[in-house]
Amino acid sequence: MHDELTAALREALPPEAVLVDPDVTASYAHDMASFSEAGTPAVVVLPRTVEQVRHVMRTATALRVPVVPQGARTGLSGGANAVEGCIVLSTAKMDRILEIDPVDRIAVVEPGVVNAVLSRAVAERGLSYPPDPSSWEMCTIGGNIGTGAGGLCCVKYGVTAEYVLGLDVVLADGRLLRTGRRTAKGVAGYDLTRLFVGSEGTLGVVVRAVVALKPAPPRQLALAAEFPSTAAAGAAVCSIMESGHVPSLLELMDATTVRAVNAMANMGLPETTEALLLAAFDTPDPAADLAAVGALCTAAGATEVVPAEDAAESELLLQARRMSLTALERVSTATMIDDVCVPRGRLADMLEGVAGIAEAYGLTIGVCAHAGDGNTHPVVCFDARDPEESRRARESFDAIMALGLELGGTITGEHGVGLLKKEWLARELGPTGLELQRGLKAVFDPLGLLNPGKLF
Amino acid sequence: MHDELTAALREALPPEAVLVDPDVTASYAHDMASFSEAGTPAVVVLPRTVEQVRHVMRTATALRVPVVPQGARTGLSGGANAVEGCIVLSTAKMDRILEIDPVDRIAVVEPGVVNAVLSRAVAERGLSYPPDPSSWEMCTIGGNIGTGAGGLCCVKYGVTAEYVLGLDVVLADGRLLRTGRRTAKGVAGYDLTRLFVGSEGTLGVVVRAVVALKPAPPRQLALAAEFPSTAAAGAAVCSIMESGHVPSLLELMDATTVRAVNAMANMGLPETTEALLLAAFDTPDPAADLAAVGALCTAAGATEVVPAEDAAESELLLQARRMSLTALERVSTATMIDDVCVPRGRLADMLEGVAGIAEAYGLTIGVCAHAGDGNTHPVVCFDARDPEESRRARESFDAIMALGLELGGTITGEHGVGLLKKEWLARELGPTGLELQRGLKAVFDPLGLLNPGKLF
Repeated sequence: MHDELTAALREALPPEAVLVDPDVTASYAHDMASFSEAGTPAVVVLPRTVEQVRHVMRTATALRVPVVPQGARTGLSGGANAVEGCIVLSTAKMDRILEIDPVDRIAVVEPGVVNAVLSRAVAERGLSYPPDPSSWEMCTIGGNIGTGAGGLCCVKYGVTAEYVLGLDVVLADGRLLRTGRRTAKGVAGYDLTRLFVGSEGTLGVVVRAVVALKPAPPRQLALAAEFPSTAAAGAAVCSIMESGHVPSLLELMDATTVRAVNAMANMGLPETTEALLLAAFDTPDPAADLAAVGALCTAAGATEVVPAEDAAESELLLQARRMSLTALERVSTATMIDDVCVPRGRLADMLEGVAGIAEAYGLTIGVCAHAGDGNTHPVVCFDARDPEESRRARESFDAIMALGLELGGTITGEHGVGLLKKEWLARELGPTGLELQRGLKAVFDPLGLLNPGKLF
Repeated sequence: MHDELTAALREALPPEAVLVDPDVTASYAHDMASFSEAGTPAVVVLPRTVEQVRHVMRTATALRVPVVPQGARTGLSGGANAVEGCIVLSTAKMDRILEIDPVDRIAVVEPGVVNAVLSRAVAERGLSYPPDPSSWEMCTIGGNIGTGAGGLCCVKYGVTAEYVLGLDVVLADGRLLRTGRRTAKGVAGYDLTRLFVGSEGTLGVVVRAVVALKPAPPRQLALAAEFPSTAAAGAAVCSIMESGHVPSLLELMDATTVRAVNAMANMGLPETTEALLLAAFDTPDPAADLAAVGALCTAAGATEVVPAEDAAESELLLQARRMSLTALERVSTATMIDDVCVPRGRLADMLEGVAGIAEAYGLTIGVCAHAGDGNTHPVVCFDARDPEESRRARESFDAIMALGLELGGTITGEHGVGLLKKEWLARELGPTGLELQRGLKAVFDPLGLLNPGKLF
């Protein structure tokens, strides 16, 4: 069976694009999620052209072999994990930036373009591609589209979905679909483009994307505010947003996270505080905006407000925040990273609730958060060698999602559902929503070959 | 049959919510599109509650009666036109603003809330709901969602779709679906919310919406620049956008439009010019931004650049632009308003092409445009009493859409497809896209009862 599949794939793909060595293919089995099983791929393909992707999908349909599309496997929900006997379809080699148009403020890219590569290329033209997940130096635009990725920028600039104008997609049966537009506006028919964003490779394989760009903003200036409790920091966030400020980032690190970052990189962050809030502005007068926000932080109980000296020092603060997840991964032998987004007004409740869960389960749970979006990343630290502690970790992870739903939030703000949260998706959507979502899946992929077992 | 239907509807709706007098129901048969046939409604219902809407849809499904959802019937594509023997379901009486939350920057509204009413209510809280179609004093949020409405704001603030976070929708069979979220971010499952935006009442009846708000910007300051040709004005638009400016509006009126507005309202706009470009900024220093944009206009060939004295004078310029369609309607006995959006870089080609079409068909075609978006509204003026001229009008209207597609644009930037453009939708989407769209429709409305014959 594997031989027949491999032979069929090689009819239109060059030898180096069809990998079958088990030692090699095994390295494509997992993304970066914990607690998510993965099967063994039958074969990994690395197409370079749309026609090659179409051949892969036609072959998969003819032979009824499941296909798992992959970007850079930096996902945190298991959405890119292999299923047993599948074709792993990596778009990593389709990595050309086809066009950057400063008049229309768009870029046209292949899915394997790395986020940071695109960001730097458009910056050279005075433009910006805002979405900036923490993995931006590695993750691809295709993967960002698949998961609906977010980042630090979202509080001002929104998520990946808001930047995807049009797509070329290879469907399960190998047909090529063009969706959306390259114009600023367009309402011709149902919004299929948006349907693909966040669909985690279950509806088709994105082979080309038209993304919107913004003019490059001025370099941002940041401040750090120290709070005696996460609740006080949460209150400051509400006060900042209620006052009509539009920070370019508004991030939170709790004491556990601050200590972990200092331990890893000696960043000199203040360890005597319970929560560190980072705010930045890329406005014409960021110092004035920071002064106003600093005053609101003080009013909300901040013990210390430290503005960065300049853009370089601001960048250091951002780097500290960006390394939070990696730093927390060193606290124990394993971590589970959650991604619960709550209404901003419930952020303090969420943070206090997570502290309660950590205590109840006897675990360390560090929290960093895109606070301005209400998007928390509680990171459960545990010893994976201890089955009992591992069980508690999984339970606390679930308790965090239950809390998020209770507070009117969602189980995933930006990481996606993948394998890790599929039972929880059903809970969030309810039976009617789930039935319709399954119906949509069947329209695009009647044989169920695209990334089966993910999402639902 | 009508008696049975009316009796069934009255089981759960009060008498004043079920209209059967043909003189009354006839007034619900049409939206504001030209050249779009309409059937005679069997009954018009005006529910006030979600439960009443559910009863209407359950009744419609039980009796297999088509349902046409309606907002304020200000649509321009016939999407709200009655079909023969249908239930017209007007959401106009569901007009409560349920919640305005300045911390989460959201409003929760019923579908019948008038756009301007929401805009003013949030302004009182220091917030703004940007989408501002020209009909904003009459049109409803439900109708805006149904058509995916745009407006003058879009060049900076985007279209309706970007403000809809979550929906409650009554499905064809009466089930209630909740989609999306009230959080800033969320990627749990396929984006059903976005699928409903622009679906023109063919997938379900929106009964509640969570919309995003922005902090109220400073009042905008505008300038008017006079150009010797539409092509020069188009070039100025490209130069402004390429230079990284972010105007809060960037609008174009051609000579025909300028004269029509002056004739209607004595606005004193300059009539000796071929195109008038309006630019505005709501930035911290709008005068500086306007000076820079004025210089770009001059460089592109503007003969005159006149900044408004103050916000009040700026508002007058906007009013002139807003009344363009109404003014052009007075040029002849009838008009057809097109809505072709092209890549910004092709705007000049589009404007010149439309002038060529006007000449070829021997008709007056006034053009106003959301120039910064490349979204043109060529308005074909003709004498509806003259069948031959009417035929030429329809042909020129089609020629304009063909030109738009040829230039890489879309047949509709913000007005929707409705009846007027359904043949053209098939052309824009192609067979694969159309087949998938029909498949989606069948998932939500297997009996085909919701606004049949619209879109495709």
